[in-house]
Amino acid sequence: MHWEASATTGYADNPLDRRAELRGDAVAITALRDAAAQVLVFAGDKPVLKPGTPLDALFTLAESAELGSSADIFLGVDGAHACFAGATPVAEHDLKARGLLVIDLRSLAIQGAVPSPIVAMLGQAKSLVTWHATHPHCARCGAPSQITQGGWRRDCPACGAQHFPRTDPVAIMLVHRGDTCLLARKPMFAKGMVSCLAGFIEPGETIEDAVRRETFEEAGIRTGRVTYHASQPWPLPFGQLMIGCFAEALNDDIRLEAEEIEEGRWFTKEECRAMLEGRHPEGYFCPPTVAIANLLLRDWVEA
Amino acid sequence: MHWEASATTGYADNPLDRRAELRGDAVAITALRDAAAQVLVFAGDKPVLKPGTPLDALFTLAESAELGSSADIFLGVDGAHACFAGATPVAEHDLKARGLLVIDLRSLAIQGAVPSPIVAMLGQAKSLVTWHATHPHCARCGAPSQITQGGWRRDCPACGAQHFPRTDPVAIMLVHRGDTCLLARKPMFAKGMVSCLAGFIEPGETIEDAVRRETFEEAGIRTGRVTYHASQPWPLPFGQLMIGCFAEALNDDIRLEAEEIEEGRWFTKEECRAMLEGRHPEGYFCPPTVAIANLLLRDWVEA
Repeated sequence: MHWEASATTGYADNPLDRRAELRGDAVAITALRDAAAQVLVFAGDKPVLKPGTPLDALFTLAESAELGSSADIFLGVDGAHACFAGATPVAEHDLKARGLLVIDLRSLAIQGAVPSPIVAMLGQAKSLVTWHATHPHCARCGAPSQITQGGWRRDCPACGAQHFPRTDPVAIMLVHRGDTCLLARKPMFAKGMVSCLAGFIEPGETIEDAVRRETFEEAGIRTGRVTYHASQPWPLPFGQLMIGCFAEALNDDIRLEAEEIEEGRWFTKEECRAMLEGRHPEGYFCPPTVAIANLLLRDWVEA
Repeated sequence: MHWEASATTGYADNPLDRRAELRGDAVAITALRDAAAQVLVFAGDKPVLKPGTPLDALFTLAESAELGSSADIFLGVDGAHACFAGATPVAEHDLKARGLLVIDLRSLAIQGAVPSPIVAMLGQAKSLVTWHATHPHCARCGAPSQITQGGWRRDCPACGAQHFPRTDPVAIMLVHRGDTCLLARKPMFAKGMVSCLAGFIEPGETIEDAVRRETFEEAGIRTGRVTYHASQPWPLPFGQLMIGCFAEALNDDIRLEAEEIEEGRWFTKEECRAMLEGRHPEGYFCPPTVAIANLLLRDWVEA
């Protein structure tokens, strides 16, 4: 297999074969619910884990049933194991009293507390579990909708509308000019952290249009050539598709959008190298390797 | 400006500056609602047009008000003209009785009945108009939601949820092997038409993952290297983002997914050239230039 930038992003190395053709086949799905089946259990939007090193995110169907989880989302198959996901109604402190852990996925991914294929499976699961939890009603008529197709659709019994899991495409871009690139910080970032600009791709625009619009809106920089580099599924808050690009800046006078961006400036390649190695003299640092911004920065520095 | 494949796709050459910073500014939006403002009016999901050559999709606010359209979606600004969109409650036959035309956007785009920048603006408008029409309720609690932010958000007065226009990323891929490429027809296609394989990118996968999964699901072909080529906003049924890729096939024994694909086979470059020029000896033809499948095929043949 040749090298592929997207395959190196966080949440990307998902081992599951989704077997989408089985989703509508209740008999086949029931047959897969055997003793070898694995379940990813969520309390709200956080994974539930068994203690150990690494932590264990894989429950049996019996264990998941004990936690009151219906495990009704079919994620796919990994060899002999069918994999399901579901939410537990048991409160976080009761789960902890049973010796289980409840840790948000972002922390798990950054800390490497579970293997990266499990992080990817948890990302897929979180996208679906959170979509169901936040979209229980039909957006067309308001009636409660029902989970169907192994968790990959919600149908409305009142008006017949079908609703599919939502995936929002986001453009994330390393804007560069000569030997420098534009990094910025949002108010929510940890102190010292800077990252690439990013924003939702809107109806009616191409990926490249969105890169140019967002870069101008957020930093007053016009961009010329835009090049796709890699993509990444991003399950926070639930279902984004990060589309990572490089963009050539046409001007260098940054004018920040004050509400969204707290600080932003041009950083040299040498500074970026220092940030990637955790030794920037002013204490700036970049997102962790699980984030596609890190990959964009790393590949630009090394190019 | 350098050449960019995405800029040559249909629905892509949108002249509007979206001025997203104005969406929440009711005073600014009201000030833009002047005599120079232009309105794109929709009957259901079809554009309303004034007769002429080319057909005229641009109404004044006064004309749009006469048709009962509130024109409450702010699309952006084109020079001195602010541009809005809205739906009319007037029935299609009454619009026709007033001398207006009601034509679906796909036909308008294929026939070149309006200039391509207007096609792009109509695409943006259709995505938003149709999203509002099909999502009037809060998916979280079921209550009727309200349009806000110049048409770029719906807020729920009951539970406080905010809902944003939906854009579904779709992978569309020209799968090639040596001097041949895989084209297929869905049952809904016009007789003789073949196109690239395509499918929705799901939660938890990269663009490249989706290309490989869909190609295997639909045609039994495993793919190696996947390369992004261009993207296209696609407003049918309302808000898709087509992400066009080339993919190298690793086997050639096609096994079609019978429910979704009616016919599919390898076509030589010479055959593809003939299809693009409308002279395939067996009468096969490819999608029109407005579709990104045409661009993928053309650029592969010419490469």
